[in-house]
Amino acid sequence: MASVFGNNIKISIFGQSHSSAIGVTIDGLPAGFKIDMDELAAFLARRAPGNSQYATPRKEDDLPEFLSGLVDGVTCGAPLTAIIRNTNTRPDDYRNLAEVPRPGHADFTAQIKYKGFQDPTGGGHFSGRLTAPLCIAGGICLQLLKARGIFIGAHICKIGSVSDISYDPCNVSVQDFKASQGKELPVIDSAAETAMSELILTQKSIGNSIGGAIECAVIGMPTGIGEPMFDGLENRISQSIFAIPAIKGIEFGCGFGVTEMTGSENNDDFYVDDNGVIKTATNNHGGILGGISSGMPIIFRVAVKPTPSIGIEQNSVNIPTKQNTKLIVKGRHDPCILPRAVPCVEAACAIAILDMII
Amino acid sequence: MASVFGNNIKISIFGQSHSSAIGVTIDGLPAGFKIDMDELAAFLARRAPGNSQYATPRKEDDLPEFLSGLVDGVTCGAPLTAIIRNTNTRPDDYRNLAEVPRPGHADFTAQIKYKGFQDPTGGGHFSGRLTAPLCIAGGICLQLLKARGIFIGAHICKIGSVSDISYDPCNVSVQDFKASQGKELPVIDSAAETAMSELILTQKSIGNSIGGAIECAVIGMPTGIGEPMFDGLENRISQSIFAIPAIKGIEFGCGFGVTEMTGSENNDDFYVDDNGVIKTATNNHGGILGGISSGMPIIFRVAVKPTPSIGIEQNSVNIPTKQNTKLIVKGRHDPCILPRAVPCVEAACAIAILDMII
Amino acid sequence: MASVFGNNIKISIFGQSHSSAIGVTIDGLPAGFKIDMDELAAFLARRAPGNSQYATPRKEDDLPEFLSGLVDGVTCGAPLTAIIRNTNTRPDDYRNLAEVPRPGHADFTAQIKYKGFQDPTGGGHFSGRLTAPLCIAGGICLQLLKARGIFIGAHICKIGSVSDISYDPCNVSVQDFKASQGKELPVIDSAAETAMSELILTQKSIGNSIGGAIECAVIGMPTGIGEPMFDGLENRISQSIFAIPAIKGIEFGCGFGVTEMTGSENNDDFYVDDNGVIKTATNNHGGILGGISSGMPIIFRVAVKPTPSIGIEQNSVNIPTKQNTKLIVKGRHDPCILPRAVPCVEAACAIAILDMII
Amino acid sequence: MASVFGNNIKISIFGQSHSSAIGVTIDGLPAGFKIDMDELAAFLARRAPGNSQYATPRKEDDLPEFLSGLVDGVTCGAPLTAIIRNTNTRPDDYRNLAEVPRPGHADFTAQIKYKGFQDPTGGGHFSGRLTAPLCIAGGICLQLLKARGIFIGAHICKIGSVSDISYDPCNVSVQDFKASQGKELPVIDSAAETAMSELILTQKSIGNSIGGAIECAVIGMPTGIGEPMFDGLENRISQSIFAIPAIKGIEFGCGFGVTEMTGSENNDDFYVDDNGVIKTATNNHGGILGGISSGMPIIFRVAVKPTPSIGIEQNSVNIPTKQNTKLIVKGRHDPCILPRAVPCVEAACAIAILDMII
Repeated sequence: MASVFGNNIKISIFGQSHSSAIGVTIDGLPAGFKIDMDELAAFLARRAPGNSQYATPRKEDDLPEFLSGLVDGVTCGAPLTAIIRNTNTRPDDYRNLAEVPRPGHADFTAQIKYKGFQDPTGGGHFSGRLTAPLCIAGGICLQLLKARGIFIGAHICKIGSVSDISYDPCNVSVQDFKASQGKELPVIDSAAETAMSELILTQKSIGNSIGGAIECAVIGMPTGIGEPMFDGLENRISQSIFAIPAIKGIEFGCGFGVTEMTGSENNDDFYVDDNGVIKTATNNHGGILGGISSGMPIIFRVAVKPTPSIGIEQNSVNIPTKQNTKLIVKGRHDPCILPRAVPCVEAACAIAILDMII
Repeated sequence: MASVFGNNIKISIFGQSHSSAIGVTIDGLPAGFKIDMDELAAFLARRAPGNSQYATPRKEDDLPEFLSGLVDGVTCGAPLTAIIRNTNTRPDDYRNLAEVPRPGHADFTAQIKYKGFQDPTGGGHFSGRLTAPLCIAGGICLQLLKARGIFIGAHICKIGSVSDISYDPCNVSVQDFKASQGKELPVIDSAAETAMSELILTQKSIGNSIGGAIECAVIGMPTGIGEPMFDGLENRISQSIFAIPAIKGIEFGCGFGVTEMTGSENNDDFYVDDNGVIKTATNNHGGILGGISSGMPIIFRVAVKPTPSIGIEQNSVNIPTKQNTKLIVKGRHDPCILPRAVPCVEAACAIAILDMII
Repeated sequence: MASVFGNNIKISIFGQSHSSAIGVTIDGLPAGFKIDMDELAAFLARRAPGNSQYATPRKEDDLPEFLSGLVDGVTCGAPLTAIIRNTNTRPDDYRNLAEVPRPGHADFTAQIKYKGFQDPTGGGHFSGRLTAPLCIAGGICLQLLKARGIFIGAHICKIGSVSDISYDPCNVSVQDFKASQGKELPVIDSAAETAMSELILTQKSIGNSIGGAIECAVIGMPTGIGEPMFDGLENRISQSIFAIPAIKGIEFGCGFGVTEMTGSENNDDFYVDDNGVIKTATNNHGGILGGISSGMPIIFRVAVKPTPSIGIEQNSVNIPTKQNTKLIVKGRHDPCILPRAVPCVEAACAIAILDMII
Repeated sequence: MASVFGNNIKISIFGQSHSSAIGVTIDGLPAGFKIDMDELAAFLARRAPGNSQYATPRKEDDLPEFLSGLVDGVTCGAPLTAIIRNTNTRPDDYRNLAEVPRPGHADFTAQIKYKGFQDPTGGGHFSGRLTAPLCIAGGICLQLLKARGIFIGAHICKIGSVSDISYDPCNVSVQDFKASQGKELPVIDSAAETAMSELILTQKSIGNSIGGAIECAVIGMPTGIGEPMFDGLENRISQSIFAIPAIKGIEFGCGFGVTEMTGSENNDDFYVDDNGVIKTATNNHGGILGGISSGMPIIFRVAVKPTPSIGIEQNSVNIPTKQNTKLIVKGRHDPCILPRAVPCVEAACAIAILDMII
């Protein structure tokens, strides 16, 4: 049940880092929706490494081939399947991972779970490469949401100790999304951009990596979406978001900030705006009350750990021989995964939201 | 699909704050397990307000009546249903909540979602009272886990700016759980306890409330549990945990701490211990790699917002008349929900873990 | 996952024949629907044994108590739970069933599955008594469907070699449903009624029982409901219907009659009726094409085996001693279960249909 | 949710008759199982039209390409995806189906459900061609079951009024499966084979088709598999089997035969065999009691309607103009679908059984 998500749409992701293809099936999309292929390609390009100095030099075209579910580019109600062929593979880089697991990766846990039968090459099904089909699915969901007036955007809000300016939780707009989306480092504030770039390149120069946080917002969300208890918006967004490797935390609205707040500080006053719409004066609740959307922007932040693949020698073990050993991770890696994780967060969020709205 | 959780066990929670009963059905429990009713009662007592100065004076006996699923106290394979009668109800306290929603509560979102047909009394199905059946289910799951050598414990790790000492992420033990569990404020460090108590009582004295954080650990977890992508341990624990009202964030291992770490700092070295068991020297990963248990303790923390029901006048709106108005929340409330939320976190975690193990 | 059904509504049935209560939780009902309690009671009365000469003398009032989900009899969006207390229990009748299984019952299979921990009394969770909560859920679903212009009815179409007249597959109406519903033997044709009655009473007089078939129709079904492949109407109705004990077969439209038909005989011609509605001239397809409703009445028939509890000595085994033995089944039994199974078929069908429409 | 099946394994089928590929993803297969590719190819060949005089002349190689989930032909725990390219397509044959629906097909219901956006070519996602990925999945499941000592076989038991000899419900063996599997018409009795062949070829000669029934058996089934109520073996097998187009009925054990039986006739006596195994003397219950396997062979029969695509002029309607019209179905069709449906029944059954056992 690993790689299937959704109640109203079912998203089934398949593939390994170096299998012949990776892909996704989406079942339950409404018929009659024309996918904007250029927009989808542009979205996928934000995840692709491209020529970014912050990303792996592994080249991935990542242009999806649609096998089913479309007639002349329009959804036909049948399950949509898209695949990406894996071409630029270098399995030799990963020969011994099944024996000597990389710290911070799933090599060890996969080895135990699958009793050594897992595909260790490049992390197999656990590879960050699997976020490509996630982004295909998410990119399509984003387009379906846009048609309903719902927009999702994200930016890097922190790398190391450097913070970007935050979205205005009550008034975040599509303009704010655009302010960061074209950039090699998707942040709003150029000073922060410069400082972050420096941080990343410093770590890169010594074969190390660095973590950070991403802020995501959903605007245009209708009021009343979500369910109490186990299928609230927080529950479902979290379940989807943690599908992205390297995410270690999520917080909604004020998040962990509430730990230092009193009720009178944290509660968001209701008021009627000039158009007769009921809003809250602040948005500490992040657009979600009781698991259900309040009509205010949904705001959440996720913690992204530093890429575990680093060029520095680490301590590991040889699993078959049960000996301590040293490990140098080969292969091509991102010194900071956050630029490429930003569209993944948007994608995972879009999947969760569309599933609850459709 | 709101109130149903689980793939291998199905937990279905029902009831409203002031309906004739609240309860839970658990489908899929293995047959032949004798529930320790005293242990269950002791667990539920930790959630009940009792006579605590930090809790609502509403008295709740909360002794479950088992309607089905047991033969002489032993599970028989049929769905287990337990209910708690609601007796000490004061619906007059909540008469106008459908019209004037309480800030920080689900009154407004429920009003929109259910078009005014929701049960507004005491928050209805959104009430914190629904954590009682959650704890019945969780308490039973905890016993089933204990029989498999798995133990779950939690404590208040922070209230306002006061922090308890943290669990040792590599060596947390059942002893550490016991260090806090008997206390009115379940914290480990007595100095912190005193300072927290002061904070809470100060807020209580002015009709206000205060938030905090809870740390939870799972020990004895077998290696290799969890699935990649959408059904990883982080995904499933999050989905379950956010069923507890007032939770606004969750982080695993170092959590948001990873945002300031480099790969070499965050990666946990593997080593072989004296018994030939592969472990990690540190536990920044919180016992989960690639969604799958590493055999190290699972560690996570959740942010708990201050009780939104406060005795201070707040700004709200009259929904039918679309007028701004003032609101004084009546009823009996907890100045700090964290002491009672601690067993809820253990319960929600136990449900998620058992569902993945069974 | 045994006793939970539904994608859009979740129906969770609990209880054993002689547990303190049996009941059902329905999650996902739309808020704002007023349940007609008299109509529900009348529906449940059709399943109850009453004073029928064809039914067990066990008295069951079967009046449901609603624990949650209603405010003044109107659904409030929260899960609805209703229970029925088991009062007229005679566990002594069933003492040795765990050791000596009754032929035709689930005693043996439950013994193996639950390793002897099952509740053997009266069949436990496998008892026909569990169709009472099924009928509570189904009775509510029928009312929700009626509000959408969809009506479901069933009648005994066969007992032994005696057949009732069939519904006209193209023109079955609510009138046809009413033609049988008030009767002790719910059949349309009085001559068949007399002959069936004789058959049943003859078997009853010798402590035996007899099987038969039930025909069910859904009218007012909108066109285009259902999904291809695994979630078609046939798939979902079947999954629901086989929850009724004693059902051993189901056929849609011409059913097994198609085995002797040619394509030109079986294909239903399309035509445009006087109101411009596209219909089929015949209804061999039973209202379902490709798993999806065609707008014609949905027609299906189910085979109901004779009540396995008979008063005649049978051959069985003593499970612990592995000895062949004789068994006389005590207790109170129906010589023919079909009259009481008719509303169960309507209920199970209603649950499946509502789940696909809502 | 149309095309996804399973609780413990998830099978997701995609593709349309004339899309660029059709395929299937299976999530949840145990790691470490070597798929016998020759055996799988042989199984798929039984479904392929080949050169059979009973089948369409459309050539389908149907050799699956495995995109993921395997390492050197061994399952690796990651979702397994296999596709078949659609090459021999003739879309011109199907140009007007969206306007003038074929009687007995899903053209009309799909048109309404998908509002004209469905893929009408060759029936799109509703095509019998989609049973190819069903058979890939089923063929793999059969191998996994075989490794557990469970075998599934089926044969044509009836075409028109001609019946094959039935399996001995108590003693059916793998030998019985082999008795029919190699044949162009998979029946056991050669006299029946000759008569059936004649029936089919007579219908073929006049552009017509003919229906029939298939009998399927599961042997080696462990006792105690299945769940009460909604997830019993009958429920789950039915849900899976009705995914095969053209199936209109299913009956277990004596099936509709029970309608004419008394309890004493239908009940299967228990006895202890020479090896101390508890069995039933007869197998009217078809190996399932209370939804749970009894250890006796599981026996069921399905009704298969005549291929709706026939070469004879039929009455239909023009949907856009709402006019009655005549239709001649072009394209290449099977005069009798049963030979090719036999492996599909085995496949669908295998999927349901494996899902409940794993």
